[in-house]
Amino acid sequence: MARAVVCLSICLSVCLGSSSHISIKMNQSINSLLQHYPISDDDRYNGKPVFSKDLLGSKMEDWGKRVFMVSVLEAYEKLLGQMLSEPPLNSSAQNCSDGRAGTGPLAHSLCFVLRAVRDLRRHHYRSLEPDRNKLLGGLQAVQKIQEDIKRRVVWSKALWELQWLYQEASSLVEKRAQRRRRRRQAQRVKNPQRG
Amino acid sequence: MARAVVCLSICLSVCLGSSSHISIKMNQSINSLLQHYPISDDDRYNGKPVFSKDLLGSKMEDWGKRVFMVSVLEAYEKLLGQMLSEPPLNSSAQNCSDGRAGTGPLAHSLCFVLRAVRDLRRHHYRSLEPDRNKLLGGLQAVQKIQEDIKRRVVWSKALWELQWLYQEASSLVEKRAQRRRRRRQAQRVKNPQRG
Repeated sequence: MARAVVCLSICLSVCLGSSSHISIKMNQSINSLLQHYPISDDDRYNGKPVFSKDLLGSKMEDWGKRVFMVSVLEAYEKLLGQMLSEPPLNSSAQNCSDGRAGTGPLAHSLCFVLRAVRDLRRHHYRSLEPDRNKLLGGLQAVQKIQEDIKRRVVWSKALWELQWLYQEASSLVEKRAQRRRRRRQAQRVKNPQRG
Repeated sequence: MARAVVCLSICLSVCLGSSSHISIKMNQSINSLLQHYPISDDDRYNGKPVFSKDLLGSKMEDWGKRVFMVSVLEAYEKLLGQMLSEPPLNSSAQNCSDGRAGTGPLAHSLCFVLRAVRDLRRHHYRSLEPDRNKLLGGLQAVQKIQEDIKRRVVWSKALWELQWLYQEASSLVEKRAQRRRRRRQAQRVKNPQRG
């Protein structure tokens, strides 16, 4: 029986594509919240989404999309926590776990959505947090070098670091080429056209 | 003969590790520049490198390291261009290509290093530029949501977008799990322990 349920869920997941990932309860909760926080159509469709779909809809490596998603899920936790903290609930995310956030449909929906977002982040995205922090911090730090571009000390130190960095940059290129060669080799082993 | 040279270079590359990626000429040019831009040991070893090695030395996915490297190489091009633009050369990166940057050892070394950095970026990192821009822009935009966290319009729009985003986040998790399953399966086919 358990096996049949697993098979069915896998089948559904394959047949329905990624649309199966959002449960009916999650959909209902979000819709109920949307009724509680109405905005005008002008505001809703002003072409400025809170989260740009550009990156996730692109051909970027999934690792990059997942790194971005760490930040998106964190932002949702903060937004939902803020909604909980305001009137009429004046509550908090902590209160969701023991029912102290309230008993009405608003508290119920907010807590349900918050838990879903938090669980997804904790179980599947937390391990990427250090990488996201390093990458964002690193890229922003390099952006700031522009401010020091005329300093001799920066020139000299950057030159000093260049030997290692140039080597690393070349090594990353070489590693990628090696992986591609191995993949092509594996493909040839899989599909030998010797006849 | 050509094949022997290729074999030898591959052997050297494997035996010496990534240290083989930096040519003697590149090393000499950087060292010559370091002599031209001397700084005190206090400045050099103050524990504040221009580019942090933290990210590149970590276990981050190579794709993330390469995205970071796009910015590093760009920054080097700007720094070297700045060095060329100041006295005594008062020249530019463009002048490097036709020898108009100068004939002395300083212009020679700066142009050599600049060309090496530029070629590496153009041939092996340029395709990652759009991804770097999207990822950095996306992460920074999400950081800024903090400023609007109390706006009802943002709550409502974010909730509206959550259905798609939650589905995407779940779908990325599922795709990763599928890839892992396929890899394990391939491993089992490669090393069948049936006896």
